[in-house]
Amino acid sequence: MTRPVKITGLGSYLPGQLPSAKLEASLGLPAGWSVRHSGVETRHRATFESNGYMGARALEQALDDAGIPLAGLDMIISAAATYDYPIPNRASIIKNELRDGLACHIPAIDIDTTCLSFLSAFEIAAALLDGRTYCRIGIVSSEISSCGLNPLDPETATLFGDGAAAVILEFNPGGASAMIRAGHQTFSEGVHETIFKGGGSRYPYKDCPYDPHVHSFTMNGRKLLRLAVRRLPEFMDWFFKDIPYALSDVDVVIPHQASKAGISLFRDIFSLKDRQLRQNLSIRGNCIAASIPLLLYESVKSEQISRGDLCLLFGTSAGFTVGAALFVY
Amino acid sequence: MTRPVKITGLGSYLPGQLPSAKLEASLGLPAGWSVRHSGVETRHRATFESNGYMGARALEQALDDAGIPLAGLDMIISAAATYDYPIPNRASIIKNELRDGLACHIPAIDIDTTCLSFLSAFEIAAALLDGRTYCRIGIVSSEISSCGLNPLDPETATLFGDGAAAVILEFNPGGASAMIRAGHQTFSEGVHETIFKGGGSRYPYKDCPYDPHVHSFTMNGRKLLRLAVRRLPEFMDWFFKDIPYALSDVDVVIPHQASKAGISLFRDIFSLKDRQLRQNLSIRGNCIAASIPLLLYESVKSEQISRGDLCLLFGTSAGFTVGAALFVY
Repeated sequence: MTRPVKITGLGSYLPGQLPSAKLEASLGLPAGWSVRHSGVETRHRATFESNGYMGARALEQALDDAGIPLAGLDMIISAAATYDYPIPNRASIIKNELRDGLACHIPAIDIDTTCLSFLSAFEIAAALLDGRTYCRIGIVSSEISSCGLNPLDPETATLFGDGAAAVILEFNPGGASAMIRAGHQTFSEGVHETIFKGGGSRYPYKDCPYDPHVHSFTMNGRKLLRLAVRRLPEFMDWFFKDIPYALSDVDVVIPHQASKAGISLFRDIFSLKDRQLRQNLSIRGNCIAASIPLLLYESVKSEQISRGDLCLLFGTSAGFTVGAALFVY
Repeated sequence: MTRPVKITGLGSYLPGQLPSAKLEASLGLPAGWSVRHSGVETRHRATFESNGYMGARALEQALDDAGIPLAGLDMIISAAATYDYPIPNRASIIKNELRDGLACHIPAIDIDTTCLSFLSAFEIAAALLDGRTYCRIGIVSSEISSCGLNPLDPETATLFGDGAAAVILEFNPGGASAMIRAGHQTFSEGVHETIFKGGGSRYPYKDCPYDPHVHSFTMNGRKLLRLAVRRLPEFMDWFFKDIPYALSDVDVVIPHQASKAGISLFRDIFSLKDRQLRQNLSIRGNCIAASIPLLLYESVKSEQISRGDLCLLFGTSAGFTVGAALFVY
């Protein structure tokens, strides 16, 4: 169902860079390991920054880009997997760190589908925007992956980066911009292939002292690739079934920057053209839910996306969930 | 904006009881402390159960109550503050534990506004239900508070309970049932009054060994009550401003079971009648986001809510957020 919404502002925040040479030295890896295995030359790592701080800066930039004050928003959605604190929710923390955050009583809500959180929030915001209760919603993804990486697992320790990005989505009837379709499917056979075990009610703090195997993010890359080979084609058939567009009509594809192998597989399965496919894995790493909006931000700012372009956000996440959103920018 | 949606099924799951006498003995409190201070005579505490297990059982009961199979759902929303694992999201874990969870590829999405998560999910599900992409959504709140309680803080240690509840919400045009209005406001001056500090990127596992003051839920009850006194009246004025109903028209009010003092304050500020106000704090404790749907479930099953009744869900949460949803059951 087409929804009359338009992205009117974009912003991002990146902490300082951590080049692979420096990271490899600290992890005891041979020089060049990261680029060869993860495809990541450099990534950003938070030092003094928190999730709330980075999210607030990205959202403020998006507001400035849209030319509206914070009071012009009707909702703030945090769409992310990592957080400063388990409670309160991420959006409340981000809102409090915004200029004018104390003065506006905008609702602050979290949406979490791990790496696809931005995509889910984009779909939900488009459904809420009705021109009455909700006219403008800010969606912000701020991720600090580095706290949850296992230094003994070079595959993940070199792959992930930190960063934040935000968009302002507006109700905008009568324009060319629109959300055409969005949707997810969760394939439970992959539920345990991407997991961070420690800290919830299965491995509570009081009973489980720090153990890098329990209190770190782990993923079974090979099984995930096999799952993707099986499920991506059926997902894409389902997604494009009842709409008057095909994947070949899409001008720009913004995939989640899951991994070098994941992006290559995605390109090959669907025979995507180089001119369609955007990437920033080599310079940002996998920034969890911030990857998609960050790449969207960078594509718009570098004029690789123009008004009227048909864009597809696409990705996989822990769960195992596959999701996509097709929209006219 | 009125939305044509109807609750067609309700379910719940409660683990075994933990009466106050037993809890008081284990915490070294005088007999009767819990009822006097927290107003809680007994609550439920998970033993073998996980968040995923309890959520799955509650959702299966709601599906049975609605008379539909899992494949009849178009989305599963987990609406909660606690979790089995930080990653993947809660809804993926619940879906995997459902009968037929492997066979259906329903999207599994989390919404988190701490204690108001169910209310937020109810609003968002109503907005998504359009009779095309989404016809039926399952919302499930499953909470295990007990892992995150500080045994040195009797106020919270006696207040909280564990439990799960679920509803099936359907697109239902032409019927009397409808969502009339839902909304939240986040008042950031209260952002630090309810917090669980440890385990995110501010107090990461690797740097912070277990400390009950860091790795437990804390709340500043007095400050929260003062905040509520100031903010509740302005919230309620805003909520009822543009709709043809007043609070006095409401047949049944289901407040979040935050605390004995919080519920009394809420009743007194708005001069609620005893016949309007539902409560289960004394026998369930504060079950975080599961409190509202559990009390809704119990009110429907005990025939204290009938078809056609005008119902108000209402509550406060960490953030500091105030929210409400007005609907015809």
